Order: sequence, then C-alpha cells, then structure tokens
Amino acid sequence: MGKVVASFTMSLDGYIAGPNVGDEHPMGEGGEQLHEWIFDKASDVDRQMADEIHARVGAVVLGRRTFDLGLPHWNDTPFPVPSFVVTHERREPLPMRSAAFTFINEGVGIAVAQARDAAEHRDVVVMGASIAQQLLGAGLVDELLLQIAPVLLGQGSRLFDNIQKRQTALKNTSVIASPHVTHVRYEVL
Amino acid sequence: MGKVVASFTMSLDGYIAGPNVGDEHPMGEGGEQLHEWIFDKASDVDRQMADEIHARVGAVVLGRRTFDLGLPHWNDTPFPVPSFVVTHERREPLPMRSAAFTFINEGVGIAVAQARDAAEHRDVVVMGASIAQQLLGAGLVDELLLQIAPVLLGQGSRLFDNIQKRQTALKNTSVIASPHVTHVRYEVL
Repeated sequence: MGKVVASFTMSLDGYIAGPNVGDEHPMGEGGEQLHEWIFDKASDVDRQMADEIHARVGAVVLGRRTFDLGLPHWNDTPFPVPSFVVTHERREPLPMRSAAFTFINEGVGIAVAQARDAAEHRDVVVMGASIAQQLLGAGLVDELLLQIAPVLLGQGSRLFDNIQKRQTALKNTSVIASPHVTHVRYEVL
Repeated sequence: MGKVVASFTMSLDGYIAGPNVGDEHPMGEGGEQLHEWIFDKASDVDRQMADEIHARVGAVVLGRRTFDLGLPHWNDTPFPVPSFVVTHERREPLPMRSAAFTFINEGVGIAVAQARDAAEHRDVVVMGASIAQQLLGAGLVDELLLQIAPVLLGQGSRLFDNIQKRQTALKNTSVIASPHVTHVRYEVL
C-alpha cells in the first residue's frame, strides 16, 4: 500500500507561504521564492525529486483554500490523479482534463480513506497546511517530504503550527542537497 | 576576521527548547532529546561537527537566561574562551576555570563588538534564542549552523521568532546528514 505523504517547500524558519495569501499573491508576499527550485532555477537534483514525487502520486487530498487558490493556476487537478477536496460545501464531482476533484464533507479522515482507495499502491499526497496539520494531529501522515529553502520569511503560514498532538517522533530517511533547497524525508514514527 | 555564528540544535518544527524551561528542565520538557546527538548517541560525523565548532570558537555571546540556566551544568564557561553575558545587571567579571564571563549592560551590539575583539581571528558563537533573534534582526549574524533533530516538539521556544527584520536571505553552504541530526550551514546574505 502507498503512503500518505505531506510534501511541502518551507523556509528555514518553517513558513510554507508568506503573509497576505490571496489571488494577487497565491503563495503570500515573498512566498514565490520558496518555489524557485521547481521552476526557473531547477537543477538536475531538483528535477529528479519533482519527477519522483510525480511518479509516486496516486491521489491528492487538499483543503478548500488550496483548491480555490490553486485552480486558476493548475487549470486541472494539481497532479494528474484523483483529488479529494475537504470542504463543508456540498458539491458534485468536478471532472478536469487529467482527473476529477471529489468534494468530501466528512472530514480529513474520510478524505484520506477515499484517496487511499483511489491511489491503490501509490502514494496519497497532502496539500495545504491546515489539512496536513489535522492529519499530523490524527497520526495519519506516514511521511514528510520537505524542501527547505534558504530564506527566513519571518511571517506567513507555518507548516508546523496548530497540531493537536504533544510530540511527534520522526526518523530521517533521506537528505539531498541541491543548489537551491535541501530535500529532506522523514518517516513519521 | 572570524564570523559571528549562531549555532543551535532545533527540532524540525523549529524549537530549540521544549516548554517550561527551568532548573528542573534546562532544555524544557522534552527538549533534552534535541541534544542526544552531542552525548550518548553521537556518531563520528556528529563528533567531527562538535570538534569543528570547538576549534573555531574564540569567544561567546550569551543571554542572561542562558547563563543562569547553563552555569550549574557547565561549571565553567560554555566553551573555554572569553564569554560575554548580555544583562541589565551590573556585575564584575567572573573568572572561571577556562576563561571569564564579562557582563555587558550596553546591549547585544556592544557585546558582539567586544567578543569579536576577544576572539581575534576566530569565531564568535551566539548562545540563547533571544540574543540570536536580536542579532539576526540587527544583521549582525554571519552564519547559521544548525542541527535539525528528527522530532516535532509542538511547543517551547522557537529560534526563528520575534526577529525585527522583514526577511533574511540565506545561502546554504553545507548539508551533512548524520544518523541523528542533519547539520546545515547557511551564510546570512
């Protein structure tokens, strides 16, 4: 069975987006520099990591806010696989070019269960800080796959905040430096 | 001339100490596991890193709280070099076995200037989150040398909080994985 993987690029001080996230700044002010490793500045190592994530993903669980902010940019599902949006809004599935968005009203646990089924032996990738925090609090994340970007943002949204769990032990399974970010992988124990 | 180096072990979620720091828990509750890499669990790589820090240090700047909490454990200066304590208390220098503590009432900038003089060509190591935050805010840190420990502490003291500067660009100059922590080094740009 695949794993539930929370995959994020964060600044060294833990921010995955700058302040004032919105249509004008979908990654928050200053947040776009976190993602340079994926785009213009990508090195071979970075491309290999991005390719590996793509090869392993079988389904996505994302939050409503990530969905709203991302859709105009993706113009598709974020990866070409079934994508489950956790939301209070009741809504019919939304077919896109590569796959469909399904809207889940029963919380993150049900979203992960449906995503696991859809992913079969491949991984479920978690997008959106709030969803990742809820899943970490519930012990439902198997792996953290982070790209640590060389900047202190000082403000914005932190990945590791509001987690309803006292402590989480991790095991570091991989560290790969690239010219732009440090790719680190942790098994959640 | 040496560098001003902020050297800390932090959890993946950015905490350098657990909650409720005090005499009973000098690293805060749960914080002692951050430092296992220095003690019983140290690997060759970890020992090399610790030796390198020792070889480079020429003076230390520390906060009053770090001084108060550390003194009973060190029973000496934290490294065998002149150590400058930033405090509001007026106090005569305190000679210890290896070197002396000097108490600085004029703020972190003056403490760093005096420590630089004392260190000559070697590095000034900064201890204590509050002092490091003030120096980062003032642009007085040359290098971050961090050991990232494989745990989410969820609460306690974060290294990168309360920094009076909008953003800080960094350049990653070294990444070394050990079985226990990830040693990362950043030049502050």
